[in-house]
Amino acid sequence: MKTPLVAPELRELIQRHDISTLQDFCKFMHPMAVADYLSTLPPHDIWEVLRVLEPNLRAEIFSNLDEDVQLEVAESLTRDELAQLISDMPPDDRVDLFKKIPPEKQDLILPALAKAEREDIRKLASYPEGTAGSVMTSDYVALPPDITVREAIERIRLEAPDRETVYYAYVVDEKRRLIGLVSLKDLILAPPHKLVKDIMYRDVIYARVTDDQEDVARMIQRYDLIALPIVNGDNVLVGIITHDDAADIITQEHTEDLEKFTAIGGPHEAGVYMKTPVWHYFRYRAPWVIGLAGLELISGFIIHSFEETLSSLIILAMYLPMMAATGGNTGSQTAALVIRALALGEVSARNFFKVIFKELQVGLLIGLLLGLLLWLKVSLFAQYGQIPAGLSASKVGFAIALAFSLQVLLATFLGASLPLAASALKLDPAFVAGPTLATLMDILGMLIYFSSAKIILNL
Amino acid sequence: MKTPLVAPELRELIQRHDISTLQDFCKFMHPMAVADYLSTLPPHDIWEVLRVLEPNLRAEIFSNLDEDVQLEVAESLTRDELAQLISDMPPDDRVDLFKKIPPEKQDLILPALAKAEREDIRKLASYPEGTAGSVMTSDYVALPPDITVREAIERIRLEAPDRETVYYAYVVDEKRRLIGLVSLKDLILAPPHKLVKDIMYRDVIYARVTDDQEDVARMIQRYDLIALPIVNGDNVLVGIITHDDAADIITQEHTEDLEKFTAIGGPHEAGVYMKTPVWHYFRYRAPWVIGLAGLELISGFIIHSFEETLSSLIILAMYLPMMAATGGNTGSQTAALVIRALALGEVSARNFFKVIFKELQVGLLIGLLLGLLLWLKVSLFAQYGQIPAGLSASKVGFAIALAFSLQVLLATFLGASLPLAASALKLDPAFVAGPTLATLMDILGMLIYFSSAKIILNL
Repeated sequence: MKTPLVAPELRELIQRHDISTLQDFCKFMHPMAVADYLSTLPPHDIWEVLRVLEPNLRAEIFSNLDEDVQLEVAESLTRDELAQLISDMPPDDRVDLFKKIPPEKQDLILPALAKAEREDIRKLASYPEGTAGSVMTSDYVALPPDITVREAIERIRLEAPDRETVYYAYVVDEKRRLIGLVSLKDLILAPPHKLVKDIMYRDVIYARVTDDQEDVARMIQRYDLIALPIVNGDNVLVGIITHDDAADIITQEHTEDLEKFTAIGGPHEAGVYMKTPVWHYFRYRAPWVIGLAGLELISGFIIHSFEETLSSLIILAMYLPMMAATGGNTGSQTAALVIRALALGEVSARNFFKVIFKELQVGLLIGLLLGLLLWLKVSLFAQYGQIPAGLSASKVGFAIALAFSLQVLLATFLGASLPLAASALKLDPAFVAGPTLATLMDILGMLIYFSSAKIILNL
Repeated sequence: MKTPLVAPELRELIQRHDISTLQDFCKFMHPMAVADYLSTLPPHDIWEVLRVLEPNLRAEIFSNLDEDVQLEVAESLTRDELAQLISDMPPDDRVDLFKKIPPEKQDLILPALAKAEREDIRKLASYPEGTAGSVMTSDYVALPPDITVREAIERIRLEAPDRETVYYAYVVDEKRRLIGLVSLKDLILAPPHKLVKDIMYRDVIYARVTDDQEDVARMIQRYDLIALPIVNGDNVLVGIITHDDAADIITQEHTEDLEKFTAIGGPHEAGVYMKTPVWHYFRYRAPWVIGLAGLELISGFIIHSFEETLSSLIILAMYLPMMAATGGNTGSQTAALVIRALALGEVSARNFFKVIFKELQVGLLIGLLLGLLLWLKVSLFAQYGQIPAGLSASKVGFAIALAFSLQVLLATFLGASLPLAASALKLDPAFVAGPTLATLMDILGMLIYFSSAKIILNL
């Protein structure tokens, strides 16, 4: 694999102050590759390079920097330089940066922007985080339905330098309501004199500003789209979400899922690992470790209250860690499958009983197999002295095996039903899975284990 | 959000045998939307609809069906119908289907295909699973460097109906070595008489057929590409991977990561939840549940061997489940963060010591805080009778707190170092995380816990 190695060449050009070669070089490189290199320089030097570039290219490279680097560079600019740069940025990246700038500085910059940009920023910033509106861009190509293919291509040519994608053009009526879609491919294939309305797709796949950003990203992925149009409540086209932003949303959501599965929760943003300070990780991880440890006190109290049972049949202590682990493992398996299927839209809360029924079957099979193995293990291999007088190894084995079978069955039931119930209540299913579920299974497991021993063996 | 609701209209058209409306209808719908609807019909009826469509559209809709539905439909076709359909499919989907067809049937179909298609299938099928070669398509636009922009657009126009994407065209020399890239946007913006070689990007981002498919997919995502060219060892262009296939690869890898984190491993393909039989889930989940339960026997033996310590200080039983859970939770947190950072390319095995150092700091902070809280809890709130004569509650608290601090520190160390070591050895880091790590921490935790009590308290 090859990613462009620009560092040595760029460094030389900067040192030699060879502006024209520098300009050419940045023009023919991928903006992300230039941004990757610039990130290794101090903010002042980054601006030294960006300053000499043509405004659109400058804004594009700047948009590819990490947001914290963007902020550092922005700090060192004059009000007018910053206003100019912000004007040239793609609308979605611009509003993301703007939201991070301290409010007092925002108030300084806003008056320096043209009215159109100012209103665009205000509008995009007004959508709540997590909605399609908050991640869309307003840089799309819109066409009227009554122009010819030749005219459409000419319009796209004029608008292309400023647009995020020109490969899809959206057809809108006089009130800017979305009525169709033509791809650039369709346009170059069609006879030049044909009307746009005669070649456009009328059944456009779209989403609303208020839709969940993850649902919209999955739609873009499912339909293999380069971009998806976003409309407001009146079906007026207000923006698009592009395939690359959709991919970023899906990756971000996956990181969050994995974090919830591994006891790193809370309303924090997942940052770049190396740059995130130790203190930040401590703050978000410690409450989980300590909170879950606190809950395990309940399991401890249960053991404590069955102390007599435990001391009269010390072989029970042998299988205690296995009992706790098995509940958590089985529950996690089930929850992971169900949550994934929910996220990919393969099942919904409406399938509640079907999913539960399926998981109970899997749980029954695993539980019976594990129970059988444990019964054989205890009956055949219990060491001399482990089984007190008056009890048979086979009966003790049965009590232990029964507890394990019940625990596996219960773990599949809760592992499936808790995420489904959360989803039906519009909560995040991943929150009731992972360590929370494992802790719950520990507590229930201890209860089942000692109760089974006490009842079956009359202890 | 709105996905096209085609079912009622399509059903009516099929019942009325209204072929021409059906043809029109399918032409202006998204192929995936048509495929979604067709999936609800029996294989024979699916073919009844596809049969009347124009071959390219037929193949495109067919490619959007799930692979098991594709196979069912393929079963019901004559050799010639199937050969025709396979010829018209996109090369990457075609080879995926072909690999699923039983070998004896493959041998029947191959002679019915044109030589070009036959060789294309053989070539694409020859790349090992998991490589860029195995997921690329051979439907790309290639241009020579010495033609004009006008000629280039004309060529794209001619090739467009058969190409997966026409938005990037790859410039190759007379030996088909990759030397540049032009986007359709650049072409429509450039003066028509300019030469392709004068406007092309020369620093093309590319990958090799042997590169890992996940790395390539992440590259497409990082650089916001619509497609990435794939070259062989001689830099000859052999295929492209498009953004939508990259998104599918990333989602597939997400699913596999989550499965490894939740004890669902093994070389199985993640299928659609509702369609995957109970037996399949049993086969892949039972070995994990039972294997991990087996390993917990080691924890059991450790408790067994410290039986005297346990019975002389029964308060230890209270904190036993907490000890096991804390090791697993802390280890999982760390491993999840490190594995995610590895997957996103934020850290690599070269950062081994930096990552370990960072995690040890987080572990130390969490360990000290948890230890302090436990020491206070035991010293101040130990019930009468829990602390045997000759021992102070504060000393018992110290022994327990020390064990927990050490356990948290060890969990962050192993949670970070095992995935990094796996990555350095080119193994999958996710395999040494999740339940495997939790089980290891259970075993180590029991050792640390009872040793600490025995040594500090002289039991």
